[in-house]
Amino acid sequence: MSDTAGKTIQCKAAICWAAGEPLKIEDIEVLPPRAHEVRIHILYTGICHTDEYTRSGKDPEGVFPVVLGHEGGGIVESVGEGVTSVAVGDHVIPLYTAECRECKFCKSGKTNLCGSVRATQGKGLMPDSTSRFRCKGQDIHHFMGTSTFSQYTVVADVSVVAVNPKAPLDKVCLLGCGITTAWGAVVKQPGIKGSSVAVFGCGAIGLGLIATSSMVGASRIIAVDTNPNKEAWARKFGASDFVNPAKLPEGTRIQEYLVELTDGGLDYTFDATGNVHVMRAALECCHKGWGISTIIGVAAAGQEISTRPFQLVTGRVWRGSAFGGVKGRTELPGLVEDYLQGLPRHAFW
Amino acid sequence: MSDTAGKTIQCKAAICWAAGEPLKIEDIEVLPPRAHEVRIHILYTGICHTDEYTRSGKDPEGVFPVVLGHEGGGIVESVGEGVTSVAVGDHVIPLYTAECRECKFCKSGKTNLCGSVRATQGKGLMPDSTSRFRCKGQDIHHFMGTSTFSQYTVVADVSVVAVNPKAPLDKVCLLGCGITTAWGAVVKQPGIKGSSVAVFGCGAIGLGLIATSSMVGASRIIAVDTNPNKEAWARKFGASDFVNPAKLPEGTRIQEYLVELTDGGLDYTFDATGNVHVMRAALECCHKGWGISTIIGVAAAGQEISTRPFQLVTGRVWRGSAFGGVKGRTELPGLVEDYLQGLPRHAFW
Repeated sequence: MSDTAGKTIQCKAAICWAAGEPLKIEDIEVLPPRAHEVRIHILYTGICHTDEYTRSGKDPEGVFPVVLGHEGGGIVESVGEGVTSVAVGDHVIPLYTAECRECKFCKSGKTNLCGSVRATQGKGLMPDSTSRFRCKGQDIHHFMGTSTFSQYTVVADVSVVAVNPKAPLDKVCLLGCGITTAWGAVVKQPGIKGSSVAVFGCGAIGLGLIATSSMVGASRIIAVDTNPNKEAWARKFGASDFVNPAKLPEGTRIQEYLVELTDGGLDYTFDATGNVHVMRAALECCHKGWGISTIIGVAAAGQEISTRPFQLVTGRVWRGSAFGGVKGRTELPGLVEDYLQGLPRHAFW
Repeated sequence: MSDTAGKTIQCKAAICWAAGEPLKIEDIEVLPPRAHEVRIHILYTGICHTDEYTRSGKDPEGVFPVVLGHEGGGIVESVGEGVTSVAVGDHVIPLYTAECRECKFCKSGKTNLCGSVRATQGKGLMPDSTSRFRCKGQDIHHFMGTSTFSQYTVVADVSVVAVNPKAPLDKVCLLGCGITTAWGAVVKQPGIKGSSVAVFGCGAIGLGLIATSSMVGASRIIAVDTNPNKEAWARKFGASDFVNPAKLPEGTRIQEYLVELTDGGLDYTFDATGNVHVMRAALECCHKGWGISTIIGVAAAGQEISTRPFQLVTGRVWRGSAFGGVKGRTELPGLVEDYLQGLPRHAFW
């Protein structure tokens, strides 16, 4: 039992006070965890474009003031009543995609989209509809059920997983979002071994998609990005080709170019840009009869994807993936072990 | 050998001379089949909305003058050189979706969209880029590789299948399009047994989807149509519910109504309307996490489907089906046998 258990903790946090404002480091009060809640000493956090999307004010569901951040690693400081899945001192990764193992979604065996804390998480609150953060006399909202831009945070017990304490938290915190999202989107999609793949966007997710496609044995991996500096990165992570849509001959659309380049189109494509026009291109460069396109990027509010229905009637499939389809509490410990052993996760391919 | 073999046949056909014109019964000349072609005495034909779509002039790829029709049944009158798959006297169904068994598509094991005669079929010509129909001194185009609105027609040998001659051709001609399209879209979609289904549009395809969903054991089948007279038909074919989108409370969208009605959405939905707004509703009433929506209807030229990408990222899948995913030469004989035995095709479920 730590000597802070049951007490409010004073610490530093990066607060976004209003949409579009820069983050500001503030002294914050982090209240003790209530029943089925866990307070975590956050040691490391990644920064994801989704944090910036909400900070910018483009996210219509953004609530302020707020502690952003959802890619963290830390150590359990204390737990509320009834918490059995993690204990004080555990090294943990907060999960913005909860896993309660009891709801219709968790029990379906078809999705990782747990419904247990979704409603309150979307409002920036804990499951009892209150906040654990206070600053300058006012409540501060939570974000994605994680709020890792604080030295201490409180999460629901269904929104955290303990991992091997030998794993460096500055590395495995990235499993809280980016790497897992990319890894899962590939390994949970049957058939990529021996198939052609195109990845649109070579940021962290895109490079993760390329690396995982390479690990599972894709026959050809085409990286697509308008930034020429991404070519070296893409090839380092396993891309066999790099195509810059900004450098195509006048009037050539990227989907037509790729269909030509691959003699009919790709077997699998992934959008990791969040741009709805790119999502369309990623679908339309799929091979007639069997090409499958997966949307991973988050589009700006109100933006829509579109295509001619003939694209689907002739055998292309349009789907998406959130957190890679991964069930965090069940699957992250294994991913951490793989990382420690320097292994790709062979069981899936 | 029939005494007409090798000769031009004079017969009646319904010709559409120009986009938007009514069909006109004309005396037509049907030339003998060339190598790998089959001339068929058409005894029965269905009428499908796709015929009317092209006749109306809305189909930007329509070519005129043309003999429409693609849902026929007949008897082989003569065959060209090298034809081995059917013989004179065979009872046959012409196939607008060819099956050559040699192209990349046929060999893929993933699609029924054979590529062998696609290019010339789309231009209204036989594979050697000429026509077998002549009327009033000019060439008349073929349609969908079948042209069943003629007493005699010529098709590629990859575009026809022989069936049990005991089967009444006035019934099984419908397997040339509508019934097979509906049947295949359901039986080739794993998981419908025990699941909820919504069918948008209760025409021939829609009723076929309802009947097949019922046969495979769907737990609930919701028929959706703006025509109240379709309710009795839908229920007769196996629908458990009927919803008329035109009768919903003011301001209620059909997708929201169905999500409410089904406590979260449907497991499987099918569009059998060709209306892109209905296609969107069919996707958006799918259950988060696992709902799969299949587009079957053919949209008007230039029309596009659209939705928020979040619909897919949260686990819905948007796909399509052409001719039900059925390989005509391989699968239609078995369907005819099932019909003769009065059986549903249990092997698939």
